[in-house]
Amino acid sequence: MKTALIILAAGKGTRMNSELPKVLHPIAGEPMLIHALEAGTRLEPDRSVVVAGHGADQVRAATVAHDAMIAVVEQNEQLGTAHAVAQARASLAGFDGMALVLYGDTPFIRPETLEQMQTSLAENDVVVLGFEADDPARYGRLVMDGQQLDRIVEYKDASTEERMITLCNSGVVACKADLLFDLIDAVDNENASEEYYLTDIVGIARGRGLSATAVTCDAWETVGINSRSELAKAEADFQSRARAALLEDGVTLTAPETVFLARDTVIGRDTVVEPNVVFGPGVTVESGATIRAFSHLEGCHVSRGSTVGPYARLRPGAELSENVRIGNFVEIKNAQIAEGAKVNHLSYVGDAFVGAGANLGAGTITCNYDGVMKHHTHIGAGAFIGSNTMLVAPVTIGDGALTGSGSVITSDVEPDALALARAPQVEKPGMARKLFEMLKAKKAKQQRGS
Amino acid sequence: MKTALIILAAGKGTRMNSELPKVLHPIAGEPMLIHALEAGTRLEPDRSVVVAGHGADQVRAATVAHDAMIAVVEQNEQLGTAHAVAQARASLAGFDGMALVLYGDTPFIRPETLEQMQTSLAENDVVVLGFEADDPARYGRLVMDGQQLDRIVEYKDASTEERMITLCNSGVVACKADLLFDLIDAVDNENASEEYYLTDIVGIARGRGLSATAVTCDAWETVGINSRSELAKAEADFQSRARAALLEDGVTLTAPETVFLARDTVIGRDTVVEPNVVFGPGVTVESGATIRAFSHLEGCHVSRGSTVGPYARLRPGAELSENVRIGNFVEIKNAQIAEGAKVNHLSYVGDAFVGAGANLGAGTITCNYDGVMKHHTHIGAGAFIGSNTMLVAPVTIGDGALTGSGSVITSDVEPDALALARAPQVEKPGMARKLFEMLKAKKAKQQRGS
Amino acid sequence: MKTALIILAAGKGTRMNSELPKVLHPIAGEPMLIHALEAGTRLEPDRSVVVAGHGADQVRAATVAHDAMIAVVEQNEQLGTAHAVAQARASLAGFDGMALVLYGDTPFIRPETLEQMQTSLAENDVVVLGFEADDPARYGRLVMDGQQLDRIVEYKDASTEERMITLCNSGVVACKADLLFDLIDAVDNENASEEYYLTDIVGIARGRGLSATAVTCDAWETVGINSRSELAKAEADFQSRARAALLEDGVTLTAPETVFLARDTVIGRDTVVEPNVVFGPGVTVESGATIRAFSHLEGCHVSRGSTVGPYARLRPGAELSENVRIGNFVEIKNAQIAEGAKVNHLSYVGDAFVGAGANLGAGTITCNYDGVMKHHTHIGAGAFIGSNTMLVAPVTIGDGALTGSGSVITSDVEPDALALARAPQVEKPGMARKLFEMLKAKKAKQQRGS
Repeated sequence: MKTALIILAAGKGTRMNSELPKVLHPIAGEPMLIHALEAGTRLEPDRSVVVAGHGADQVRAATVAHDAMIAVVEQNEQLGTAHAVAQARASLAGFDGMALVLYGDTPFIRPETLEQMQTSLAENDVVVLGFEADDPARYGRLVMDGQQLDRIVEYKDASTEERMITLCNSGVVACKADLLFDLIDAVDNENASEEYYLTDIVGIARGRGLSATAVTCDAWETVGINSRSELAKAEADFQSRARAALLEDGVTLTAPETVFLARDTVIGRDTVVEPNVVFGPGVTVESGATIRAFSHLEGCHVSRGSTVGPYARLRPGAELSENVRIGNFVEIKNAQIAEGAKVNHLSYVGDAFVGAGANLGAGTITCNYDGVMKHHTHIGAGAFIGSNTMLVAPVTIGDGALTGSGSVITSDVEPDALALARAPQVEKPGMARKLFEMLKAKKAKQQRGS
Repeated sequence: MKTALIILAAGKGTRMNSELPKVLHPIAGEPMLIHALEAGTRLEPDRSVVVAGHGADQVRAATVAHDAMIAVVEQNEQLGTAHAVAQARASLAGFDGMALVLYGDTPFIRPETLEQMQTSLAENDVVVLGFEADDPARYGRLVMDGQQLDRIVEYKDASTEERMITLCNSGVVACKADLLFDLIDAVDNENASEEYYLTDIVGIARGRGLSATAVTCDAWETVGINSRSELAKAEADFQSRARAALLEDGVTLTAPETVFLARDTVIGRDTVVEPNVVFGPGVTVESGATIRAFSHLEGCHVSRGSTVGPYARLRPGAELSENVRIGNFVEIKNAQIAEGAKVNHLSYVGDAFVGAGANLGAGTITCNYDGVMKHHTHIGAGAFIGSNTMLVAPVTIGDGALTGSGSVITSDVEPDALALARAPQVEKPGMARKLFEMLKAKKAKQQRGS
Repeated sequence: MKTALIILAAGKGTRMNSELPKVLHPIAGEPMLIHALEAGTRLEPDRSVVVAGHGADQVRAATVAHDAMIAVVEQNEQLGTAHAVAQARASLAGFDGMALVLYGDTPFIRPETLEQMQTSLAENDVVVLGFEADDPARYGRLVMDGQQLDRIVEYKDASTEERMITLCNSGVVACKADLLFDLIDAVDNENASEEYYLTDIVGIARGRGLSATAVTCDAWETVGINSRSELAKAEADFQSRARAALLEDGVTLTAPETVFLARDTVIGRDTVVEPNVVFGPGVTVESGATIRAFSHLEGCHVSRGSTVGPYARLRPGAELSENVRIGNFVEIKNAQIAEGAKVNHLSYVGDAFVGAGANLGAGTITCNYDGVMKHHTHIGAGAFIGSNTMLVAPVTIGDGALTGSGSVITSDVEPDALALARAPQVEKPGMARKLFEMLKAKKAKQQRGS
């Protein structure tokens, strides 16, 4: 069946105490809205509609940046979830398939769970996602009649008996799109909050003799986020699950609780990750690599046998081939580092190619920015860049070439050549002693004066 | 009513296993004595007296460094809390107002709690601070008779019935100063420890027909610290409360448990603090800034829109205006960085002014120390400092000026000028290959020789 | 009594999901096999035999690297623990003393526990190590008859009554070597797993009228590790115990939970360790030092009064004398730093001696590698190395000498001399403005073109 996603993302999130719309607050390096979208993406939806409201411009920008094909519609007044879904009607005009209603502040629903809903819809008119709550608290309850979902009852309207039910309502709903909008038309707002509730469609559907059922997922999948402390808790829970999954996959995490992962972090088997490592979005590390303590990686690739850190920062576009060594206080950005190359200490390598087996001495800097534009540096295979060499881009250092320590290299260097840009060393005997004596006398005089 | 603080800080703290007097062990970057003093400071006391004993010289030095107006008196023998308070008598001679007795190893009492005691003293002769303990254990109990505090009974002297009382004694006492010293004169040391207990003044006061009462605070406020593991626990509890308060205030902490705060850290709403950030004393960060992972801040100010880190160190006197960018492996000390300026990589900027929109290349160093004195560097607005420029202070770089990569700048540079100090690049064809062959041959020879 | 260790280290550890043999997975910076060996080493064994199997070559290499005197034998088929012990027979031929059977995946048994077993063997033929389990789960039970160990019963074979026993079997056994191999010869594999169980020797010994007993240790000592999550848990437990021990010894750990220690880390009383510090193997820090946040230490020594970090990396061979100061973004490797010397910012000091009171400016680099060999740098007492000086080793800077900022020093410098290698500063008025205008025009043109 064709699938369309409707993601409700209009809420203000007052308790977040933020200028940023709630659904744009990040978990694991990405807005929670993106997590919700990505879970749905696994169903290969034909259309996706985000219903924005508070901070609609920001929500639109973030959505389009993630996937320009997603429609963003605005709910100008917040009149309830059914009203929010109704805003997607025009975007889904003529769409013949399943509509799945997700929430931008419920980031953890697993794709497998959504697939179950999709399957279940083949035999039912409405499918609601429920979860077994240890402590159901004030959640709405799913009142089942065998396999059929009889109705959803809000906690405050529930009888004592109904309150004993532990199967709770997540709010996630699947329904054929045309039927969904039909049912929504029948929803009214005659309740205490004067809101149009999406959950009411179950009772309406049943009243019409249609079938409804529930699919059940783990409670943690349906966690909604309403405050910064809930956000911090959700982040911590995400991290715990992601770390446990890596351990299960054979990754060595010395102190898992100190490693921060992104939604899309991929790390190969037997790779060692030491304490205090931060992975931003877009990182893949192959098997058998080592990421040492205090390293920070974003948008980069680390190949088998490479060692990174401690205190290494790999920025977007850093591509490390096999057996590369990136050491301490080194920043790599938009640069390919070929097999066996070494950048061990206190260096900045940006917009560059570093050839196989090249060795960059401490303090190497690719001067890639002239104040207006960025330029490229090419370092040939086997080149040896002396400590504190400035490579003023655009510049090419030939294979096997050598630059002298402290040189500013502004012109290309031929393969196997030695390039130097260095003033001769001059020594002034006894001058250090005289200088310090003079300076001390000056200081003493100043102190007497003050 | 006028207020005087008496802070008892004479204890040895044997269980701390330390040369440092117990009250000087820090929590959140400052000695716990300072926490106790600062809580009292909110009452705007007319006089403050610290009663030192063990390590009195160190306690005196730390106290005076914090506030030179505070008197420090010595208790040469530790004969009990009443005896300790008695040491403050001379310092408070002629003082007509409330004396509030606090403890240097009880750092967390809230100013609001002390204000309540102050208020309560208007209607009572003696006010004792109590707390409801979940597990009262061996604390002394406050025996109330309606609103009146009848007496304080030590656990070991308490009847079974009295041990059922959960209102415990914190030891904190408020009393008019002259009455306090009067009551203390009546305290004896006829008990198992042969000590003069401050708590005895309640019974004595009541015996004289005076009134006493209790003010109640949260149990965590009265936590006393006696060992390093209790200190670590207190630090962790402080951090938990401080992080929760920031979340409540609308600060984004990705992983709150990895952010360390000082007593006086101020962070604005919607500022993002990534994992693993340490705030030392004296830091203010405005709203809408970003402090990236692995950053370390002390005594500095970060304005709206600025980004700091990862791996940035802001030391005392670093003042960042709006939209400043401080990047990785950068140290800023005693320097003003004007709006929109950038110091992105591997730099040391100390004793300096960096003008608006200036861009400091990777490896920029302000050479501020000549071995005897520190000197100032001025970088003009819009200046572009080439990578690895040494700015030998005192030196001024004019607005819009440019320095060439790798230059040592010892003289002032005019606005809009280009300054260079650079040897010409020389190339020796084939020389790299020859050199490496020679070195390898030499090594082989050495290895054969050894 | 003479002692021999037999360490069983042949298991595959399938649940580790790793190419690395289970016993080589590290805890606190060293393979768990080494932990087991080191616990036994306190008994000053005359011989030690590691029984390897899966990944035998790697186990052999790690064992020999730790102590070349340890024999490594191979168990080619994994037929049970008795069979594994039997592989050590040839290595212990003619050995007249106690054989102690330990496990390479049980790293935490205390030497004191093993000493107790040794003592107990003086009066018994077989000594088994047991532990009182809170939740005995499926462990084998030790069935005692007074002081005598009657037999070891596996959980699945235990009666309801036997399952009430809480004294569990650790598997660690002490026995005279010749008797041990005798008893093992009598073990058969007539059980569900068709394995030869070492535990069967207790029943066999008792059947022969020999005596057996149990020594009891804490449950945590006998923890075995079978998966990466168990490994992570074991690491965390090790760290908790090690941190608590340091607090007890009078070390100041601001946030103990963020400090990572190695098996052999030694830190003196009143030394302060700030948050987020990693200690690799081989570190000793004297009393009264300070290790600031985000520091990383391996194989180094820090003396009294020295301060390290934040963001300092001390690599193997870094030896800091008293009152040394190593600052941020500084790497020290194989270098002695004499009393009072300072390396405060952004430096690399490797293969060097830095004299007393010397001051190395920001960006100092010892260029110790010529592409083929490493060379030594000597910096004299009281020398002042200007910022960004390259010291091209081998090179000697005399006492009290001074190098100018940005100099490349290739020849030795005499004491008290000033050495400079610096191009003169040249200024081109208005050139910066012209350059930027030109670059901007060029960029605009490119953008129009694209």
